[in-house]
Amino acid sequence: MKIAQSLQQIQPSYIREILADAQAEGVISLAGGLPDGESFPMALMAQSLNNLAIRPELFQYGHTAGYGPLLDYFKQTYQQADNHSSVVCTGSQQGLDLIARAFLNPGDTVVMEAPSYLGALQVFGLAQANIESIEQRFDGPDLTQLEAKFATGNVVMFYAVPDFHNPTGVCWSLAVRQKVAQLCIQYGVTLIEDVPYRELRFNGNAQPLVSSFCKDNALVLRSFSKIATPGIRLGVVTGKTEWINPLIKVKQSSDLHSSVPMQAVLLDLLSHGQFNEHLETLRALYHTRYLTLAEQLNQKLPAGCKFNHVDGGMFIWLSLPACDTYKLAKAAIDNNVAVVPSAVFYRQGETIYPAVRLNFTNAAEAELETAVDRLVTAINKTLG
Amino acid sequence: MKIAQSLQQIQPSYIREILADAQAEGVISLAGGLPDGESFPMALMAQSLNNLAIRPELFQYGHTAGYGPLLDYFKQTYQQADNHSSVVCTGSQQGLDLIARAFLNPGDTVVMEAPSYLGALQVFGLAQANIESIEQRFDGPDLTQLEAKFATGNVVMFYAVPDFHNPTGVCWSLAVRQKVAQLCIQYGVTLIEDVPYRELRFNGNAQPLVSSFCKDNALVLRSFSKIATPGIRLGVVTGKTEWINPLIKVKQSSDLHSSVPMQAVLLDLLSHGQFNEHLETLRALYHTRYLTLAEQLNQKLPAGCKFNHVDGGMFIWLSLPACDTYKLAKAAIDNNVAVVPSAVFYRQGETIYPAVRLNFTNAAEAELETAVDRLVTAINKTLG
Repeated sequence: MKIAQSLQQIQPSYIREILADAQAEGVISLAGGLPDGESFPMALMAQSLNNLAIRPELFQYGHTAGYGPLLDYFKQTYQQADNHSSVVCTGSQQGLDLIARAFLNPGDTVVMEAPSYLGALQVFGLAQANIESIEQRFDGPDLTQLEAKFATGNVVMFYAVPDFHNPTGVCWSLAVRQKVAQLCIQYGVTLIEDVPYRELRFNGNAQPLVSSFCKDNALVLRSFSKIATPGIRLGVVTGKTEWINPLIKVKQSSDLHSSVPMQAVLLDLLSHGQFNEHLETLRALYHTRYLTLAEQLNQKLPAGCKFNHVDGGMFIWLSLPACDTYKLAKAAIDNNVAVVPSAVFYRQGETIYPAVRLNFTNAAEAELETAVDRLVTAINKTLG
Repeated sequence: MKIAQSLQQIQPSYIREILADAQAEGVISLAGGLPDGESFPMALMAQSLNNLAIRPELFQYGHTAGYGPLLDYFKQTYQQADNHSSVVCTGSQQGLDLIARAFLNPGDTVVMEAPSYLGALQVFGLAQANIESIEQRFDGPDLTQLEAKFATGNVVMFYAVPDFHNPTGVCWSLAVRQKVAQLCIQYGVTLIEDVPYRELRFNGNAQPLVSSFCKDNALVLRSFSKIATPGIRLGVVTGKTEWINPLIKVKQSSDLHSSVPMQAVLLDLLSHGQFNEHLETLRALYHTRYLTLAEQLNQKLPAGCKFNHVDGGMFIWLSLPACDTYKLAKAAIDNNVAVVPSAVFYRQGETIYPAVRLNFTNAAEAELETAVDRLVTAINKTLG
């Protein structure tokens, strides 16, 4: 059999591919978007996991939209309007895939900020969408470019990660949020608001969701990989029921439903009296690691390298003088530190700003110090 | 947003939609394809489930192809050749979806037997494939029709459920298996062999997999919903590595990977010393229920209704005199028994043979008796 045309142009995930290398003995990985495994809330999930064996009803086929009590929890927690609802997904990655399959025809236009989340590029690529990129500024997307795209009348959706963007860490200002929402309403563009890192703010106050200003023009993707654990593969899409229903229809074909035992465990975790405490501990840990990485970079980086400070999330975006970032990433892994070159976050033909993405949530403080030493060696070697 | 064109023609699953009705108080459901919930191997899974809380490594991101030790188990158990491998799926439903997305362009031809598994019709419909149907005989597909389709040179894949077909319960003879494999090789058609019911044989000896006669021309879909439990959502696709790799690439976009804790629990279950005993008990239970349902039908059915005996699986296909099977299903549910009308297993425009699908695995013997009484009343009322 020949590979389908829609798949031929899709690059396999560089990040997923190098995870194997990054896990090799002696390599410190700043490459993945992995949460800290030692901070998983196992203690808070233990009772729930232990109860699974006496809850056989959770092991039968379930409803495609999700486990009823979990859907009820979302309804209440997200204060959903009567005409809004949720569909539980096998990770928020599936939510994005369902959105693309339910609402995009080949050639339909999707706007994204560049650089972009690789998983979204893959999804929209598979859907054979026409991806239009706009530049990102320190406080969000370039609004002039965004409105110019919207004004063509051809844009179906705007995909955005407004809280601690992957890969850049940018968090949109309130003014940008309000303006983007207004533009979405004005031009009839649907906002796909992807917020996997939203709960990982360790500095400053939370901004309102962009979609809170355009509720009926948005679908929101939430992930439980960062605040619960990734291995359980659970996320949720919320929005107008008339848009959630087509997602449910695609999900019937895709996997019937997501794991019910895992949904029950997630509900128990989210409702646990100590869950907020767990989040506070996690944020404090990531804050410390971020400060360590930032300080190390400040101390050791050669001239011409710089990064913006972040108030949350998982990544530092380290801008570099002109260089081949793939070559740099190779030199880094040869020197036992894994990073992601900026090129993988851009589509072919786009202007690639030389940078590397550094994760600060998965390595301990002492490792971060060593990692920076190794990275600086690789940078010096590559820049020559 | 408008619904994508590919989705507009897809009917939501009648079966999934009526599950809610079928679960209403007082209704006996022979409609779903649900295994018996009271037979779930909870005792065999208990230790494994209890251990999850002390295995945090299972809760981190995993590899897209699946949990390593589970993949190793498949390699050994299925005696895979060096150039063959597996991808674990979020239910075998996802496996089918991945196959369609990886290998079908819109308009590509897929051959299926009619009537057909509804979930496959949905998947191939979403892929905008050209579905060509052939008739099914008591021992498998009509080989003359099959070869005529293959001989056009336009067929990419032949989707088949050779063991206890859904909805008809037909199990292919050895001769048909060998002939189909030979035709697939001869005409370069890929066999998609879907075997969710294969382990549910309660009478006679297992036939070899069709794909055992055309290993390099086939992808095999196995489900763990029937032999383990459906709620964990796990299946596996096996075949040539050059065909498994594109599935992995699509799966990266679809959901990154399937739940790792559930994969670990599945591995523990499949490797459990008492797992075969569990299967024997399950087969014996389903055999008893099948015999009860068959006997009740033989005793009570009006003239003109008939069914073929089955040696396994979950369904009896009850052929009826000419009637509106939707009307019959409605009359049945009004009389507190849920069945699936044959019409939902055919595509629009196909000749629909009047029948209903009856599940015998999810209702106890006493319920099966009452269910037949109610169904016969509904049949008599509908046939007038």
